[in-house]
Amino acid sequence: MSMKSKPRSRKAGLPPGTLIHIGDKLTEATRMTVLDYDEAQVQEKEIKTVDECRPFKDRPTVTWVQMVGLQDTNILEELGTVFGLHPLTLEDILNTDQRPKMEDFGEYIYVVLKTFYSAGDQRDIVPEQISIVLGAGFVISFQERESDLFKSVIERVLAGKGRLRKSGADYLTYSLVDTIVDHYFGILETLGEKIEVTEEALIKDPSTATLQAIQHLKRKMLFLRKSVWPLRETINSLGRAESSLIHESSGIYFKDIYDHTIQVIDTIETFRDMLSGMLDIYLSSISNRMNEIMKMLTIIATIFMPLTFLAGVYGMNFKYMPELEWHWGYFMVLAIMITIAVLMLFYFRKRKWL
Amino acid sequence: MSMKSKPRSRKAGLPPGTLIHIGDKLTEATRMTVLDYDEAQVQEKEIKTVDECRPFKDRPTVTWVQMVGLQDTNILEELGTVFGLHPLTLEDILNTDQRPKMEDFGEYIYVVLKTFYSAGDQRDIVPEQISIVLGAGFVISFQERESDLFKSVIERVLAGKGRLRKSGADYLTYSLVDTIVDHYFGILETLGEKIEVTEEALIKDPSTATLQAIQHLKRKMLFLRKSVWPLRETINSLGRAESSLIHESSGIYFKDIYDHTIQVIDTIETFRDMLSGMLDIYLSSISNRMNEIMKMLTIIATIFMPLTFLAGVYGMNFKYMPELEWHWGYFMVLAIMITIAVLMLFYFRKRKWL
Amino acid sequence: MSMKSKPRSRKAGLPPGTLIHIGDKLTEATRMTVLDYDEAQVQEKEIKTVDECRPFKDRPTVTWVQMVGLQDTNILEELGTVFGLHPLTLEDILNTDQRPKMEDFGEYIYVVLKTFYSAGDQRDIVPEQISIVLGAGFVISFQERESDLFKSVIERVLAGKGRLRKSGADYLTYSLVDTIVDHYFGILETLGEKIEVTEEALIKDPSTATLQAIQHLKRKMLFLRKSVWPLRETINSLGRAESSLIHESSGIYFKDIYDHTIQVIDTIETFRDMLSGMLDIYLSSISNRMNEIMKMLTIIATIFMPLTFLAGVYGMNFKYMPELEWHWGYFMVLAIMITIAVLMLFYFRKRKWL
Amino acid sequence: MSMKSKPRSRKAGLPPGTLIHIGDKLTEATRMTVLDYDEAQVQEKEIKTVDECRPFKDRPTVTWVQMVGLQDTNILEELGTVFGLHPLTLEDILNTDQRPKMEDFGEYIYVVLKTFYSAGDQRDIVPEQISIVLGAGFVISFQERESDLFKSVIERVLAGKGRLRKSGADYLTYSLVDTIVDHYFGILETLGEKIEVTEEALIKDPSTATLQAIQHLKRKMLFLRKSVWPLRETINSLGRAESSLIHESSGIYFKDIYDHTIQVIDTIETFRDMLSGMLDIYLSSISNRMNEIMKMLTIIATIFMPLTFLAGVYGMNFKYMPELEWHWGYFMVLAIMITIAVLMLFYFRKRKWL
Amino acid sequence: MSMKSKPRSRKAGLPPGTLIHIGDKLTEATRMTVLDYDEAQVQEKEIKTVDECRPFKDRPTVTWVQMVGLQDTNILEELGTVFGLHPLTLEDILNTDQRPKMEDFGEYIYVVLKTFYSAGDQRDIVPEQISIVLGAGFVISFQERESDLFKSVIERVLAGKGRLRKSGADYLTYSLVDTIVDHYFGILETLGEKIEVTEEALIKDPSTATLQAIQHLKRKMLFLRKSVWPLRETINSLGRAESSLIHESSGIYFKDIYDHTIQVIDTIETFRDMLSGMLDIYLSSISNRMNEIMKMLTIIATIFMPLTFLAGVYGMNFKYMPELEWHWGYFMVLAIMITIAVLMLFYFRKRKWL
Repeated sequence: MSMKSKPRSRKAGLPPGTLIHIGDKLTEATRMTVLDYDEAQVQEKEIKTVDECRPFKDRPTVTWVQMVGLQDTNILEELGTVFGLHPLTLEDILNTDQRPKMEDFGEYIYVVLKTFYSAGDQRDIVPEQISIVLGAGFVISFQERESDLFKSVIERVLAGKGRLRKSGADYLTYSLVDTIVDHYFGILETLGEKIEVTEEALIKDPSTATLQAIQHLKRKMLFLRKSVWPLRETINSLGRAESSLIHESSGIYFKDIYDHTIQVIDTIETFRDMLSGMLDIYLSSISNRMNEIMKMLTIIATIFMPLTFLAGVYGMNFKYMPELEWHWGYFMVLAIMITIAVLMLFYFRKRKWL
Repeated sequence: MSMKSKPRSRKAGLPPGTLIHIGDKLTEATRMTVLDYDEAQVQEKEIKTVDECRPFKDRPTVTWVQMVGLQDTNILEELGTVFGLHPLTLEDILNTDQRPKMEDFGEYIYVVLKTFYSAGDQRDIVPEQISIVLGAGFVISFQERESDLFKSVIERVLAGKGRLRKSGADYLTYSLVDTIVDHYFGILETLGEKIEVTEEALIKDPSTATLQAIQHLKRKMLFLRKSVWPLRETINSLGRAESSLIHESSGIYFKDIYDHTIQVIDTIETFRDMLSGMLDIYLSSISNRMNEIMKMLTIIATIFMPLTFLAGVYGMNFKYMPELEWHWGYFMVLAIMITIAVLMLFYFRKRKWL
Repeated sequence: MSMKSKPRSRKAGLPPGTLIHIGDKLTEATRMTVLDYDEAQVQEKEIKTVDECRPFKDRPTVTWVQMVGLQDTNILEELGTVFGLHPLTLEDILNTDQRPKMEDFGEYIYVVLKTFYSAGDQRDIVPEQISIVLGAGFVISFQERESDLFKSVIERVLAGKGRLRKSGADYLTYSLVDTIVDHYFGILETLGEKIEVTEEALIKDPSTATLQAIQHLKRKMLFLRKSVWPLRETINSLGRAESSLIHESSGIYFKDIYDHTIQVIDTIETFRDMLSGMLDIYLSSISNRMNEIMKMLTIIATIFMPLTFLAGVYGMNFKYMPELEWHWGYFMVLAIMITIAVLMLFYFRKRKWL
Repeated sequence: MSMKSKPRSRKAGLPPGTLIHIGDKLTEATRMTVLDYDEAQVQEKEIKTVDECRPFKDRPTVTWVQMVGLQDTNILEELGTVFGLHPLTLEDILNTDQRPKMEDFGEYIYVVLKTFYSAGDQRDIVPEQISIVLGAGFVISFQERESDLFKSVIERVLAGKGRLRKSGADYLTYSLVDTIVDHYFGILETLGEKIEVTEEALIKDPSTATLQAIQHLKRKMLFLRKSVWPLRETINSLGRAESSLIHESSGIYFKDIYDHTIQVIDTIETFRDMLSGMLDIYLSSISNRMNEIMKMLTIIATIFMPLTFLAGVYGMNFKYMPELEWHWGYFMVLAIMITIAVLMLFYFRKRKWL
Repeated sequence: MSMKSKPRSRKAGLPPGTLIHIGDKLTEATRMTVLDYDEAQVQEKEIKTVDECRPFKDRPTVTWVQMVGLQDTNILEELGTVFGLHPLTLEDILNTDQRPKMEDFGEYIYVVLKTFYSAGDQRDIVPEQISIVLGAGFVISFQERESDLFKSVIERVLAGKGRLRKSGADYLTYSLVDTIVDHYFGILETLGEKIEVTEEALIKDPSTATLQAIQHLKRKMLFLRKSVWPLRETINSLGRAESSLIHESSGIYFKDIYDHTIQVIDTIETFRDMLSGMLDIYLSSISNRMNEIMKMLTIIATIFMPLTFLAGVYGMNFKYMPELEWHWGYFMVLAIMITIAVLMLFYFRKRKWL
C-alpha cells in the first residue's frame, strides 16, 4: 500500500502514446489465451503470437482474448494494430496507475477497473489493474498477473450453461465486470473481520498497536475508496452507453452491478465511520487510563503525606516535647495515624475513587 | 448490528439470476397468504402452492400475495413464473443485503425497503428487508419473518372502511410503504429515549459505559441512516413514476410519505449531532475530573511538603541547634506549621481550588 | 427542546387523513376570528361555528379566518369541508411536527411554518407551528396558541394604511410570512446576547456550567437550523409559484423575505461557528489550567524534596558523622538549604513558570 | 465585529417599504455630490437638495450621484421619487445588514456590496455597506461614511484618461465594483501579516493570548467569508445580466472581477486552513509543555524519594542497628546515595528525558 | 510558500488593463525565442525585438514564441499589438497571482497554468505561472524564469519525430499543457517521499519537529490543491472548447490530460488524508508518553511513600516505643519494607504497568 505514483514521472516529457509499462512486473512472461464461442460451439487455445488471433476475430463468434502480464510492449502494439486500438488506449493499459474509467472510442469501448488481492503476509491489499476492451464480436482482457479471478467465467463459458453462451460480447463484458465487483465483497469481509478483531482488542486492552491497526485499516479504506468511487461512475456510463456495442437489454444487468457498487461504497463508508468511532474510543481510553494512574498517585500521596508529616513531628529533637514523655504517646500517635488513613479511605470511597 | 456483508461473497462467480437466499433464516417455513378484494367483497386465504394464486391473479380485483420467509427458493421461482418477474428481481428479493430502491420493469414496479425490529435483549435493532412488487391488479409483499408489521393494513382491508377498498393496487402499495415509514418513528422514539437516559448518565456520572453507550447509539444511527437516505430517493421515484401502474392521483400520497421520510432523516441527523455533542461533553468531563484529581494532589503536596521539611529540619542531630534548647521551641514550630497550613488553605481558596 | 418525535408514532397504522392532533394542547379552547376587508371597508368578528364563515367566503373581499388552538378536530373537519381542503392538508395542520413546506393543491396553497417563543424560565425556545392556507379570496391561518404574533398585521388591516388593504389575499399571506420571518431576528438577538454572556464567562472563569451553556446554545442552533433551512426552499417556492393565486407583482415581496431568510441562516451558521470556536477555547482553557496546577505541584516538589532529603541526611543516627559535631554545622546546612531554594526559584523564573 | 443582527428586530411588524435606517450613524450629515460627464466634458457639483439632480439626470451624459451618510431618510425618499426606485430598494439601502446581492428591477439594477475598514485601534475590521443603483445614463452610489474608497475612480473621471470617460454608466459601475473588490486584497494582506505575527508567536512562546489571537482571526475570516461568498454570485449575475443597462462588451470586465473574487475566496479559505493548523499546533504545544513539566516532576521525585527513604532508614531509633556503629557507615551511605542518584540520571538520559 | 497576495494591492485604484508586473523578478532580462515549423522544415531563432516575429506570424507554419521573464512590460505591450491580445489578457499574464483558467477570446484562447519548482534548500516549493496563448497558427508561451520545463517539447519539435510536427498549434498547446501536468507527478513523488520519511520519524521518535514537518507538508498540500483544483476545470474547458482553434481530433488528447489531472487531485487528497492520520498518531503518542511518565512517577511514589513513612515512624523519639528495644526490631522492619516493595511491584506487574 505504498504510494504508487512514483514510477509515473518516468513518462514526463515523452510524447503521448509512448508505450512504457508503468508498474511492477508480476509475471514471468506474457501469456495469451483465446476463447472463441457461440451458442453451438466453444474453442479454447493458448496462443504465442498475436497473428493467431486474426482468424478468430473475423468469425461471427464471440472472441475473448486474455492477455496476462503487461511487460511485453511489442505484443501489445501488435494487438493494437490487429484490433485497431488507439495509441492512448495502449498507453492507458500499460500505465497501471489509472483510475477506473470507461471510454467510448466508437469502434470499441475501453474499460479500466481495479481489483485487489492480499500480498504475502496477508497484511496488505495490493491493487491489480484490469483493462477490458469490448469491440464488435470480441473482448480483450488485460491482467497484470496470473490469478483465478476470471476462472468462474471461463468455466461458465466452457460449460455452456446459463445466458453466457447465448449472448454477445457485451454480456461477456458484463460478466467480467460483475466478477470484479463481486470480488470486492470478499475483500470487505476480510477487512470487516479485521475491524472486529481490532475492536475487541480496543475494548479489552487498547495499546499503541491497536492505534496503528486502526490507522492501517483507515488507510486501506482510503485506498479502496479511491478505486471504488470512480467505479460507480464507470459502471453507470457503461449501463447508459449509447453505443451499438452494448444491447439495450444488457442495460438492466449493468444497473444490477451499479447497485452492487453502491453497496460496496456504503460498506466502505460505514467501515470508515466505525474506524473513526474506534479512534475516539482509543483516545478517550488513554485519557481514562491516565485518570486511573493519577487517582492512584493521589490516593497514595494523600494518605501517606500527612502520616509521614506526623511521624516527622515526633521525630524532632526538641528538648521539651511533652507528648514524647507520655507513656502511651506512641500508641496514641499510631491510633491517630490509623484513624487518618481510614478516614481518607472512606473519603475516597465516597468520591468513588476506590 | 454486526456487519451483514459477509454472506454476500458466497455469490461471487455465480451467474446473475442464481437464486441463493443471502441472510439468516428467520422463520420455520415459508407462509403465503392471498388477500383478494374490490369495493364489494374481500377474500383472505392461506395458500400452500403458488398455483393457488392463479385464479386470483386473473380477476379484476386487487390481489395481495404475502410471502413470509424467504428460504424456499422454489416457491419464489414459481411465483416469478406466474407473475412474470425478471430473474434479477428474484435475486434481489433473496439477497437481503439490498439498499432501498425502486425499479420500474414496465410490467411491474419492484420496491425494496428496510424495516427494523428490536432483537432479544432490546439492545440491538435488526433490519428486515421488505420487497414489494406492484403489478397490474396485484401486489406481492415479501417479508423475512413473521411480524405484526402489516396487520393494520390487513385489518383496514378486511374492515372495508376508508379509501383502501375503493382504490387500486397502487394505493395498497402506498399503504404498505406508509406503514413501513411510520414504523421508523417508533424506532426513533425508542432511540430518543435511550439518548435521554444516556445524557442523564453523562451529566450525573460519566463512565466508560456511558462512552460505549454513546458510541453504540452513534453506530445505530449510522445504521439507520444507511437505510433511510436511499429511502428518500426511492419514495421520490415512486411519487414521480411515469408508469401506468401508479395513478396520478396517488402522487400526493407518495409526496406525503416523502415528507415523513424527510422528517425521519431530520430526526436522525439531529440525534447524530446530539450524540456528537455528548461525546464532546464526555471528553471534557474526563479532563475536568483529571483537573480535580490533580488539584487535590497539589493541595495535599503543597501543604504537607513544607511542613514535613520543617519537621525534618528539627529532626537533624546537629550538636549545636539553639532552637532545640528553647523551652517553647516545640510549640513555636507547631504554631509556625499551623500558620503555613492555614495560609496555604487561604491561598487555595482565593484561587478557587477549594 | 425535548425530542418532539414521540407522539408521532401514535399514528402508525392509521389510514392517511385520520385527524389526530399531535402536539401539546396550548390553549383552553379553539378560538376563531374572521377579518373581512377590501379597500373600502373592514369587518372583524369572533365566530363560534364554521358556518358563520360561509357568507364572508363568497364575497369578493379578502377573508382572513384565524384559528387559534388545534385540539378541536371537528371544527377543523368542518373548515375543510367549507373551504375544500384535502384530508392530507388537515392531517398536516394537526400534526405539529411538520417541516416548513409549501404545497400547491391547485384550489389553494398550503404553507406550514415554524415560529418560536420563549417558555417559562426563558431558557428554552419552544416551536409553534403556523399553517396558512391561501385560497381564492381567502386566507386561513392556524396557530397552536394565543400570541401577539399577527397583532401588527391585524392592526395594519384595521388601520387601512399601506398596501395591505389595497392588495389581495396573496399580499396578506406575504405579510403573515414576513411577520414570522422577522420574528426570527428577535430570537437570534436574544441568542446572540446569551452567546456574548457565555463568551465573557468563558474568558473570565470557564466552568462546567460554561460548557453546558455552550452545548445548550449549540443544540438550540441545531433546533432553529432544522426549521429555517426548509423555510428557504418554502419561500423560494412561494415566490416562484406558477399559481393564479399569487400575482406576479407579489413575487418581489417574496424575494425580499427570501433574502431575510438567507440572513437568518447566515446568522445561525455564524453563531454555530462561534460556538465551535468557544468550545475549542473551553477545552484548551482546561488544558491550560491543568498545566498551571502541574507547574505548582512541580515547583513545590522540586524545591522541598531536595531540602527534605538534606534534613533527612542530618537526621541519621550514625555514630561517626563529623558535620554534626561542627559548631556552625546547623547554620551551614540552613544556608545551603536557602541557597538551593533560591537557585530553584531563579531556575523556575528563567523558565517563565513563575 | 459584534453581532450586527440586533437592530434588525426593530422592524418586525412594520409594513414592507417602511424606511428606517438600521445601523450606526457614521457621519454627521448626509452629503451628496453629482459627477456628470461624457467624453467631451465633466462637471462635479456638491448638491443640497435632490431636486438639483434633475437637470443632470435628463442629459445624455453619465450622471453619478454619490450619497454619503444614510441617516436622512427624507433625502432618500426624494431620490427614490426622482429616479423611480422601488420602496423595497430604498428599504434595502437603509438596512445596512444586507447580504451582497444584485437585483434587476428592469428600469434599474440594484447592487449591494460590503467593504471593510479598520476601526480605531486597528484590531477590528468594520463592514460598510455600499449600494449602487445603475439606471439608464445614471449611477447612484450610497456609502455609510466618508472615505477615500472611490477617490481613485473620481480622479480617473476628472482626469479623463482611460476608457472611463468614453464608456457608459455600466463601465462606471464596473469601476466602482472593481475598486471595492480590489480593496479586499488590502484587507487580506493586513490579516495575512497578523497571521504571520501570530504564527511566529505560536512557535516562539505559545500563550493563551496566542490562542485568543488565533480565534480572533478565525472569526474575522468567518466574517469576511460571509460577505465574500455571496459577492461571487452577485458579480456573476452582473456579468451575465440580460439587461439593456449592461452592454455585452462589459461582460469581460465583470468576468475579470469575478476572477478576483474567486482569488479573494481562495485566500480566505487558505487563511482559514492555516488558522486551523495553527490551532492544532497550539493544542499540541500545550500537551508538550505538560509532558515537560511532568518529566521534571518525575525526575525529581524518582531521584529524591529513594534517597530520602534511605536517610529515613538510618534515622530510625532502633537500639540495635549495626550499620550505625560502623566507623565509615555514614560515608558508605553517602556513597550509596550518590551512586543511586547518578544511576537514575543515566537512566533518564538513556530515555532521552534529559 | 509565504502568502503571495501581498503585492496584489499595489493595483487597487488603477484602471483595468494597466500593465504592472506583480511578482518577483526571476530572470535578469526578458528573453524571446521563436520556433517556426511545419512537417517539412523547422527554424529556431532568438529574437531581440517583437517586430522580428511578424514574418513568422504571417506564414502558414506553426509559430511558437517563447517569452521568458515578465519584467519588461514594453515588450509585452508590443506583443499584444502584433498578435492582437486584449489588454485584460496582458494584465493577467503580468499578474502572477492568477488561478489556473482558460478564456476564449474568439481570436485566441488564453490559458494560465501553474507549475512548481523547488527553491534553494529544497524545503519549499515555489509556484511559477505559465501563460499560453493559442491563436490561428501561433502559440505564445510566457514563463517567469529560465527552466528546462519545455525542453523536451522543443527537442521533439526539432527532432521532427511523432505527431508534433505533423499537427497544428492546438497539438503544440496540448503538448505544453501535458508537460506541465506531468511535472506535477514529479513534485508529488518528492512530497510522497517526504511524507514517508516523516512517517518513519513519527513511529520511531515523535518530536515537535515531526509535528512541524507534518504541518509543513499539510500546508504544501493546501498550496498545491489550490492550483490543481481549478486546473481540472481549465483542462476540461479546453477539451470541450467550441472553438475553431482546437480541432475535434485533439479533444481525446485533452481528455487524456484531464484524466492525469484527476489522478494528481486524487493523490493530493490521499496525501492530505494520510497527513491527517499522522497528526492523530502524533497527538495520541504525546498522550501515551504522558501516561508512561505518570506511571513511572506513580510507581516510585507508591513504593517509597509507605516505606518512608515506616522509617519515619521508627524515627520518632517517644520514650516508650517497645519495638525499638527488640533485638531484631531493625531487621524485622527492613524485612517488612522489602515485603511491601515486592508486593507493590507484583501489583504493578499484574496491572501491566511494568
